[in-house]
Parts: sequence; C-alpha cells; structure tokens
Amino acid sequence: MKFKYLASAMALAIAGPTQADVLIDNVEGITIGVDGKIQRFTALVIDDDGKVAQILESGEKKPQTDYRENGQGAVMIPGLIDAHAHVMGIGIGALTLDLSDTNSLAEALDKIRRFAAENEARPWILGRGWNQEKWGLGRFPTAAELDSAVADRPVYLARVDGHAGWANTLAMQAAGITAASESPAGGRIERLPGSRQPSGVFVDAAEELMRAAIPAPRPNERDLAFAEAQKVLHRHGITAVADMGTTIEDWQAFRRAGDKGALTLRIMAYAAGPEQMELIAGARPSPWLYNDRLRMNGVKLYLDGALGSRGAWLKRPYADDPGNTGLPITGPAKLRNILVRAAQGNFQPAIHAIGTAANADALNAIAEIAESFPGDRRWRIEHVQIVDPVDLPKLGRNGIIASMQPVHQTSDRLMAEARLGPDRLEGAYAWNSILQLGGRLAFGSDAPVESPDPFAGLAAATTRMDANGEPFGGWRPQDRVNREQALAGFTSEAAYAGFAEGRFGRLLPGERADFVLIDRDPLLATPSELRATKVLETWVGGRKVYDAD
Amino acid sequence: MKFKYLASAMALAIAGPTQADVLIDNVEGITIGVDGKIQRFTALVIDDDGKVAQILESGEKKPQTDYRENGQGAVMIPGLIDAHAHVMGIGIGALTLDLSDTNSLAEALDKIRRFAAENEARPWILGRGWNQEKWGLGRFPTAAELDSAVADRPVYLARVDGHAGWANTLAMQAAGITAASESPAGGRIERLPGSRQPSGVFVDAAEELMRAAIPAPRPNERDLAFAEAQKVLHRHGITAVADMGTTIEDWQAFRRAGDKGALTLRIMAYAAGPEQMELIAGARPSPWLYNDRLRMNGVKLYLDGALGSRGAWLKRPYADDPGNTGLPITGPAKLRNILVRAAQGNFQPAIHAIGTAANADALNAIAEIAESFPGDRRWRIEHVQIVDPVDLPKLGRNGIIASMQPVHQTSDRLMAEARLGPDRLEGAYAWNSILQLGGRLAFGSDAPVESPDPFAGLAAATTRMDANGEPFGGWRPQDRVNREQALAGFTSEAAYAGFAEGRFGRLLPGERADFVLIDRDPLLATPSELRATKVLETWVGGRKVYDAD
Repeated sequence: MKFKYLASAMALAIAGPTQADVLIDNVEGITIGVDGKIQRFTALVIDDDGKVAQILESGEKKPQTDYRENGQGAVMIPGLIDAHAHVMGIGIGALTLDLSDTNSLAEALDKIRRFAAENEARPWILGRGWNQEKWGLGRFPTAAELDSAVADRPVYLARVDGHAGWANTLAMQAAGITAASESPAGGRIERLPGSRQPSGVFVDAAEELMRAAIPAPRPNERDLAFAEAQKVLHRHGITAVADMGTTIEDWQAFRRAGDKGALTLRIMAYAAGPEQMELIAGARPSPWLYNDRLRMNGVKLYLDGALGSRGAWLKRPYADDPGNTGLPITGPAKLRNILVRAAQGNFQPAIHAIGTAANADALNAIAEIAESFPGDRRWRIEHVQIVDPVDLPKLGRNGIIASMQPVHQTSDRLMAEARLGPDRLEGAYAWNSILQLGGRLAFGSDAPVESPDPFAGLAAATTRMDANGEPFGGWRPQDRVNREQALAGFTSEAAYAGFAEGRFGRLLPGERADFVLIDRDPLLATPSELRATKVLETWVGGRKVYDAD
Repeated sequence: MKFKYLASAMALAIAGPTQADVLIDNVEGITIGVDGKIQRFTALVIDDDGKVAQILESGEKKPQTDYRENGQGAVMIPGLIDAHAHVMGIGIGALTLDLSDTNSLAEALDKIRRFAAENEARPWILGRGWNQEKWGLGRFPTAAELDSAVADRPVYLARVDGHAGWANTLAMQAAGITAASESPAGGRIERLPGSRQPSGVFVDAAEELMRAAIPAPRPNERDLAFAEAQKVLHRHGITAVADMGTTIEDWQAFRRAGDKGALTLRIMAYAAGPEQMELIAGARPSPWLYNDRLRMNGVKLYLDGALGSRGAWLKRPYADDPGNTGLPITGPAKLRNILVRAAQGNFQPAIHAIGTAANADALNAIAEIAESFPGDRRWRIEHVQIVDPVDLPKLGRNGIIASMQPVHQTSDRLMAEARLGPDRLEGAYAWNSILQLGGRLAFGSDAPVESPDPFAGLAAATTRMDANGEPFGGWRPQDRVNREQALAGFTSEAAYAGFAEGRFGRLLPGERADFVLIDRDPLLATPSELRATKVLETWVGGRKVYDAD
C-alpha cells in the first residue's frame, strides 16, 4: 500500500490560504533597512502569518486588504530587543521588594519594614536593588541593621547588580552561616571589622550559601512571575529579549506559556551553564519554537563578577582596594573547555566579562578556539565594560559581538572612576571605539539590574549623559554612538546577535510584524524628550500585546 | 486603534480548508464501538488533520475522496496502546546488553564477555534482563562471577524486573562500596554468606548507590535511544504508551522529537515523583501537545518493590522467606501527602503496588483522599498483582483504574507460587474478578521488563497460558478475560486510563487515525496464532510510521 500523495496533500493543507491582510496606514514608520540604513515609510501591511507583507512610502499605491486601520500619525518603530536581560528576574523582581529607588540606608530600612508588615504571610522577605554607593554609605550594610527592620522572619536582599546579597540574622541562621563558615572559592563572606563574625553581606559565589537556604519558588509563582515580566517588557516597547542564564525551571515556564498560547515575548535563551544547556536543548540548539518566539541559542557563563562588589577581574589591582584584583569565576582552562563543548554542538557562548583581565582572557580564548571552529559563530561577550585599550582591536575579529548595556555606563561612571582611577578608563564602555574597530554592538539593559526602559538606553547610548544631563556633554563623549547605531543596537543588531536576523528586528517584508507605536520620533527628539517617550501600543507577530489606553 | 477582526481572521486561516481525504478500502476493520462493543467495518476515511472521518460497513456507499488505497484484505485494528511501559528504558535497553534470553549463568557470562569485546570504546558495560530464577541458580549471582567475564571495566546489569542490579568489582569500587557500606532505607546490599563483604547484588533502594556512579547518558544518546524506542514499539503495532516514571531528561527528549516533527509515538507521561512532575508541568497537567502526541498526565510513585527481589510489601511474610514482609518504599503518610498534592493540581497519580499490603494501603489511601477530591480522577494503581481478596471490591470504587500487565502473570506464576504459597493466590492477577466487581482494566507490558509485544499480552490475557501453552487450561483460568475485553484493555480502556478517550484508542469519526494492519483476526485466531500475529503496517495520525516490507 503506497500513499505517495498524502504527504504533499497535508503540506498543502498546512500552508493554508492567503487572506485577511491588514493595512496600518498613516504612521511615521522607521526601520533599519536592507542596506543597514534608516528607511522611512507611512504604511505597513501584515499578512495572516503575522509577518510584514509590505511597507509603503508616502504616495505609493495601497493594496487591497481586508482590514485597514488609521495609525493617526503615531511613530512606528520595530519592536525593541533587549540583548541582555534576566526575564524571570524581572518577573520575580516585580513581585518582590524593590529597593532600587531608595537613597539612604534609613529609607531602605523603612521600606523593608513596611513591605514585611504588608506581606505577613510570606515566610521569607526577599527583594533586590540596594546600592550602598547610591546611599553614600561608604561600606556594606549589616545584618544588625536589617534586624532592626525585620527580626521575626529571614530576610535576604540582592544588591542592585546581583553580585552581592544582604541577610538578616535569621536568614544566616537558616543557611547555617556562623563565624566558622569559610568563604567559598570565587566568593566572599563579609566579616565585621576585626572579627570573623559574618557581617550579613555575601559576595559572588558566597551568595550561593544564602540562596541555597531560600525556598524555591513554586511553579505557579514562576508562571505568575513570567506573565508579569512579559507585561513589564511590553509596556516598555520590548518585543524580544536575550535571556541570560536560563535554567530548566525558567525554560519550562517559557514552554508552558508557549504551549497554552500565552507566550507573547520572543526569547533567545542562553542557558545557565553547560549542564543546563544540554538538559534543555540536548546536543544542538533548539529549533525556533512557537513561530519564532523561543529558541535555546547557547550558554551564558560568568568569567568574572561585577565592579560594584569588586568582583570584576582586573589586570592590575583596584585603585580603591590595592590588594585586590577581583576574581576569575571561571578559570582559563575551564573557560576553554566550555567554549569547545559549546562550539562542538553549534551552541553560541555568551561570556560575562567586566574587568580588563576577564575581557582579555575572553578575547584570547575566542581567538584560540575560533581557529578550530571557524564559521559564523557570533561569539558573544556580555558587558565588555572595562577593556584594556591594547585588547580593543580583538573585538573586531572572529565575528565577536559586544553585548553592552548603555545605562550601565551612566549608572556606573563614578564608581568606575573610583574603582579604576582616571588612567584606566580609555577602554571603558567603549561603544564607538568598538564599532570603529570593526566590532558589532548589541544593546540591552541587564534588567532587573537596571530598568528595562530602552528609551533610557537609547538616550544614554547617544549622549553618555544620565537622566539629569550629567555630566554635561557626556562622559568620554568620543564613545557615544549616533542615533541610527543606537536604534540598530536595540533592534536589528540585537536580532543578529541572537541569530534572529531575517526573522524579526526590522520592519521588512517576511519578518515578523513586531512593532511599537510611540508618541515621538526617536531620531529627532532631544535626549530628555527621548527619555520621556510614551509607548502607545506594542505588537508582536501582528497582534497587539500592549495598549496604553 | 482597534483590530477586532484580526483574531477571527487568523482563526479562520489556521483552521484551513477541508480537502485531500484518503479512503482505505478492502480491510477487515475492527474497533471498539461507541457502545463499548466490537464494531466491524470494511473501509476507513482519513481527513487531512489525520483523524478518522468515517468508517464504512460492507455495501455502504463510498464517499468521493482524493486518494483511495486498497488494503488488500488485511485486518485493521486500532493502534495498540501500552498502558504501562518505560519508553526510554526500552530505547536504552535496545542499545545495551540484553540478557533476557539467557537460560543459565554460564550462558549469560559468555554473552557479557562477547558484548564487552565488541564494545571496546564503552567505559562502562551496562545491560539488563538477567533472572537468577530462570537460570535455576537458586541464589543471586556474584561480583566474582561477573569479574570472570569482564575485569577491565566496570559492569552493571539490571535484573529483569529492574528491582535489583548486579555489579562487578570495578563497578563497586567506582561507587565506593565496601564491607563498611550500610544498606539504605528501602533497599539491601546483598552480602557474601557469613560476611559483610558485598556480594555484588543491590536490591531496590540500594541500586541507587550503584546508579549514582554510572555516567549519565549524553543528550544525543538519549535522542538515539528514544528514536529506537519508537521504532521498537511501532514494529509491535503500538502507537501510544503511558510512560511510567518520566524524568525531566526523558521529557526533554520527547519534546526535542516533537519540536523537530519526529515524535511518532503518543505518550501519556507520568512523572518520576512529585518534584519532576512540578518541574515538567508546573502547577497543572500540560495541555495535549503536538496534535495529541504528548501530555504530562500525572505522577508515578512506588509504594513497594517487586516479587522477584522480595521487595513487594505483603500483609504476611513471604512463604519462602518467613522473616520478610518486603518493604514499603513510600510510607503511608508520604503516600497521602503526594496524593493530595497531585489532586490539588488535577494531576493523575499512578501508584505502583505489587504486594497485598501495598495494594491495601493504595486502596485505603485513595478512598480517604477521594472524599476531599471528588470527581473524575481515575486514580491509577499500577500492577495490582497480589491483592488480598478482602480488598478486591475496593477496586470497583472511586473510579480506580487497575493498570495491569497480562504477561507478568505468565512470567511470574511459578515465582508467585513460591513467594506466596498456594493459599494466597486468590487475588493474584485477578483481571476478571476486578472487572466483575466494577473495576476498569488497562493493559500494558511493563517493557523493557517484559517484551512490549501486545499480541503476547492479548494471548496471556485471554488464556492465562504462556507461550508454551503452560499450564494447560490456564493458571487460575477464572480470571481470564474475553477477547473483546482484552482488546479494549490494549486500546480504548488504555486511552481512557490516560484521559485520552475521544482522542485516540478507537477507529471512530473524530479520533486520530492510529491503526495497525495485521495478517489475522485477533478475535478469531487461536492463542498460538494470536502470538504469531504479523504487524504489516503501523499508522499514527493518518501517517504510516512502520511498514514490514
């Protein structure tokens, strides 16, 4: 019995008819065009696969479509892509205590006290966002200070950069931390001055000692958190994200959303280490799932820590801590082993590197491994914050992608000056230098470390001034990028960085109709106007997922 | 801006046109009908969703279809469903050493020696299927005996029932097992006579001590094993399976196959414990994925061990081991906790219960929990092998499903007689009694513990005689079922047991077109003819997945 016609008959049925196109008219459309330059248009046609069928310039004849809508003069830009964020962190953060707006220790303690009182049922008080630098404290806070706010339950609060955590006494008891506890490799238990008594702050790998004691979120909490993350991101005009450090629990939450048709965010996932990568994806990256909404691209790994906690790995000691060069979290041999293992499976590595020594080792390791694994691999370095100028040219080789977060520059500049001193800033947040040397930039936010607001990112990228216009004229302004480069960093280049070019990132025929309607032109607005951009609507795959009304 | 028409336009596009129906003509079709009775037909129409559009009786007018094929008089039955199997175990077993056909220790050692020589690159020699009872050994084999076959690499071989394992000296060294090692709760390290020296055999929970030392399969090995399992099952006419004890690694392999369009087997998954259940499915069972090919239904848990290793939990001691009543692996309080947790999430529990005490506790626990969680929950008990007759009526209450494996009865009867003695067999493998008391039977194989061949299962179910016709007239023949009941147990009732009724299991309009073409009529064949049934073709969702030619 032979059924040679059956397969083709079924393919025909699946392809379906072409009908029900939608025309969105009367917009000021902007996209990165096929030539990489800005292209403007006034109307966009969506086909019924949710892809762009056509973009039309003023005066072009409009096609017959089933539905036609008036954009009422709004500015339409491609859906914004955050090339470095922590999706579940955003969602869980939105459901927990946020200290990122506190300006002093006293203000923070007051907010913690109120949150605990309002959330009596929670067995642990969890939160994030504190920053002793912003508070002007000049030191880490202590467990005793936290006890003064909450003494009846364990409390654990992550620092703004996620590289340190602050515990109260009950939390340390729950984790079994005592004066006898030793700091683990790659981390540090802070001690009270002149004592072995833990002070309450845990840096980098030492955070794991505390995190292990915190009850894991239940799956329904994860699903709620993910739904919340999608909302937060769409509200900011973000339609796609590179998720940095995806665990199997995160992945399952993404899939659950996809399976029930509730996945509205596009996620390019980078697994939390090689074991999670293999568990999630198997021997090769996953296919694009749910109509280009989810793919396991590769593996995130931490080469070093962060500047704030002095965990970034420097070639020479910190200017404000002369005995300390920071910590390599992943040593050179292990880094190379993981890169080879990833490359063998065509997985894309995304290497967190902040300090000069970390960036140098990442660049050297890539150069070595790329010899054995040629081809289009798009080795990603995440953050690329402080690069020794002698290493900068290496960012233009081997197809490396510098995945950077413009707002980090404006948030960190005073700290960076303190940590590094004035003579080591030439390769700091060196966006334009990297472009000029032939490198490629993808822009993101590192949310929830920073706000996911991409308009703040666009403003920082093009001015190197913060929301208060400081410093006037920009910090090391030679490393600003222009508006087109900044927009590309948050759209087409962020897509390219995740092997998604041609699928989304531009409003060109055949790409997914992911777009944002906003109230001003980001290529013409002043920096402060740009920061005040209002997102009117966000669309993913031809469907509206956020409406400001 | 409003797009109220867009959603409906897209729904229309997805539904697609109806065309390209296929008629399969000239078959002797058999299905369980809407009334639960056998219905016969001579032609079947498949729609382009891969579902049954129509079945036609002889003389009925045939519809116009795009394609028409001649079944050449083959018998067509619904795709067979194995209500209890271990899918990845089948696949891994197919790729490793199989000792199930060995009839003596010497023969087994010879086969092990040859396999090791043929597989020099493997760092561990792994296999399964040994049975010291079948060998007539009267005791467990020893590490020293295994060393005589392979001494250069670790060897670990699972017993036929998976409830014990046999290690050589290098394997025990790799696992750190010495005379000082203690048996864990729920398990036993066998010792040499009059010594604390481990003999090489590890029973039930003690197996974990060995398994922890075995390198985990790589993801590509898992993918190969799963592809192999699908092949093995389709070759036997099986189109769907209840997978008992799905781990996250298994689930990811199933999803990888689904994501790339290579999932041809329908899998009703029962997670390996409540943690895996929540990790995989979240707070609720998954939806049916990949056009009814995969769903996480619930949770598998082990209440006791097996008869062979005397791990089955009995009310009174073993007849052949008077000090031993076997082991409850999951204690009464924990069992009830897990059942409540499953019921709260609408997960279906599948409780492994072999011995009289285990079955009594499973039945009592269900009766207690069902009071708080009424409704259609289909509490499953797996194996239900040895039930105290006073407990049998409870199988007819609360919508319980007895998920049983007919071939176990024919394989185990001599062992069951030895373990229990003649006066405790009244409720042993009591299929017909359970039906008569209002219970529901789903049939499976427990592959790879037994062959997955469902025709052997149908023959055992209807005769209670083994492949050699022993014992003549059947063992406790009053508990035979008739052919219609046996076929239902492997089709419609196995689907019902997994909440799949109406989706597959019968060849009725609207159900998936899963069917098998075979060379004889299973309702008319003699038992030995039935066992010799040849599967000609296997189809899943209107597509051929196996062809004997």
